[in-house]
Amino acid sequence: MATPTGRSPELRHDPVSNRWVIFSPARAKRPSDFKSKSPENPDPNSSSGNSCPFCIGNESQCAPEIFRFPPDLGNPNWKIRVIENLFPALSRTGEYPSEAGGRSLKGLGFHDVVIEAPVHSVQLSDLGAGEIGQVLLAYKKRIEQIATFDSIKYIQVFKNHGASAGASLSHSHSQILALPVVPPAVSTRLDGTKEYFEKTGKCSLCEVRAKELIIDESTHFISIVPFAATFAFEIWIVPKDHSSHFHELDSDQAVDLAGLLRLMLKKMSTQLNNPPFNFMIQTSPLRVEESRLPYSHWFLQIVPHLGGVAGFEIGSGCHINPVFPEDAAKVLREVNVNLSG
Amino acid sequence: MATPTGRSPELRHDPVSNRWVIFSPARAKRPSDFKSKSPENPDPNSSSGNSCPFCIGNESQCAPEIFRFPPDLGNPNWKIRVIENLFPALSRTGEYPSEAGGRSLKGLGFHDVVIEAPVHSVQLSDLGAGEIGQVLLAYKKRIEQIATFDSIKYIQVFKNHGASAGASLSHSHSQILALPVVPPAVSTRLDGTKEYFEKTGKCSLCEVRAKELIIDESTHFISIVPFAATFAFEIWIVPKDHSSHFHELDSDQAVDLAGLLRLMLKKMSTQLNNPPFNFMIQTSPLRVEESRLPYSHWFLQIVPHLGGVAGFEIGSGCHINPVFPEDAAKVLREVNVNLSG
Repeated sequence: MATPTGRSPELRHDPVSNRWVIFSPARAKRPSDFKSKSPENPDPNSSSGNSCPFCIGNESQCAPEIFRFPPDLGNPNWKIRVIENLFPALSRTGEYPSEAGGRSLKGLGFHDVVIEAPVHSVQLSDLGAGEIGQVLLAYKKRIEQIATFDSIKYIQVFKNHGASAGASLSHSHSQILALPVVPPAVSTRLDGTKEYFEKTGKCSLCEVRAKELIIDESTHFISIVPFAATFAFEIWIVPKDHSSHFHELDSDQAVDLAGLLRLMLKKMSTQLNNPPFNFMIQTSPLRVEESRLPYSHWFLQIVPHLGGVAGFEIGSGCHINPVFPEDAAKVLREVNVNLSG
Repeated sequence: MATPTGRSPELRHDPVSNRWVIFSPARAKRPSDFKSKSPENPDPNSSSGNSCPFCIGNESQCAPEIFRFPPDLGNPNWKIRVIENLFPALSRTGEYPSEAGGRSLKGLGFHDVVIEAPVHSVQLSDLGAGEIGQVLLAYKKRIEQIATFDSIKYIQVFKNHGASAGASLSHSHSQILALPVVPPAVSTRLDGTKEYFEKTGKCSLCEVRAKELIIDESTHFISIVPFAATFAFEIWIVPKDHSSHFHELDSDQAVDLAGLLRLMLKKMSTQLNNPPFNFMIQTSPLRVEESRLPYSHWFLQIVPHLGGVAGFEIGSGCHINPVFPEDAAKVLREVNVNLSG
């Protein structure tokens, strides 16, 4: 079946998520015509000032602070604050159960918030690479603190931008959720990359170098649209050198990653009309077995929200993506953005 | 941590989806206060008449028909039509590849639409049990037709109700997507129910009889909120007697299932303010190995859309559900609905 984009449907298997994705151009506009129908344009005057608990000056409206940058509690001119979530999904107090073998488990863990900027109207991509690098280093510092708890098995860092991508407050922030179990997507990912490693002797994420999928690169990182992207215009930023855990990042690498992340967020916003989006740091479980390290390679996944998840996806776990990854990569490679703004 | 609902967070493992779900009442309203913020209230006058291709009289605007009920092509007074999808996710023509071992596969399969009623303003739950039974028998008939193709491995039946649940047309319809691979959620489900079977010697879905999780039952079916429901107010309708494939359903069972499905849809609509929803028939792969039959038990899953999927869920595959299943079951058990309407 020929389509307006000249392509036929195709199923692709992603060794990282270990699943099939349907690429279905019959339902698509031209790749360059994708735009968010509900662009996020947070009014800097709404929910700001007194009413936003994340704004500078309103610290007393928040749950307890864990640390701030610069690291001086007496300094009111903070740039970044890491605080407890006022409505945590998991509770940080109580006895940890000794074994996870049963069908239920006490909901113990950590759920923190990283306030990325003191001012309401500033979004993450408005910051300079140095400042975004500091946000990444705040994630790293908090991960290192939480990792000391033996009962924590996995730490998920994620950012929800825009109400329809799950953000309940428009003030720029991200979240850190530390779990007493290894979550299913992470187990599945390790199984998938293991299978690839056993077949090829190589780490699947060290291998992402297909020219047609690359958007850009920096000194230490490469940004791609993955071969079997689950979502239209999904982007992965992958360390060029093998690294299992995000928190192995050093300060130089943090600023380098920040620059590429900023570029990807600006490209996505320009091309797709400031869509709601999520990004997730896909790292390895804490205390992962030594034997898994050769195929455990962390990356940062960016997902714009251009369509919803419906019955087919919920039922089958299989996603339908209307944009071929090489087309999305070409569009994102070619879009010009203003990096000074 | 005590909460307004008097419960602490808990993680639960579902042997069927084979994953952990976080139950987090700290973020919740009282279970009885959940309402859809974007109720679906399709205006029977909008997109109807000439502009809706699914309305009776507009058959020429649709892709080719496969069959209709009553089964007489010359009869203009049809009740149900099964047609090809005008924008199929998969293509029905082309050579089928001989092996699925590679990283990509031609997108061959079937993608059909079941128009559940001839009139625009009629929703599925407005129909009588006998009429809904006919819709279920239309699924069965189409599944049996597609199952004759050796290259088809799995057939997913699903319904999207409401724009934010993925419905692009408000005229009541469901879809049938036949895939050349077993999709990931199905493989995971079989692995999960296998593990349960090996541990206990029993089928996990033959075992769902916990009184506090039951909403209602009919002669052949039971409706429950599963112990580790992924979504708030998720409902499963499960055959009481072990059955691996939906299309084993006979005509009596179809009407019986239809009555319970109708009751659940009405309860959900009444209690949750007519939310957008999906339902999915979770059946077994075609030609599943004999050894898997004892733990392959089909069911119908209903998911109201009360909140979106955000970065944590995409990243970890782990869901946060603000309503404990026994609380949701109690609310749904007690809600009164008008079954004559």
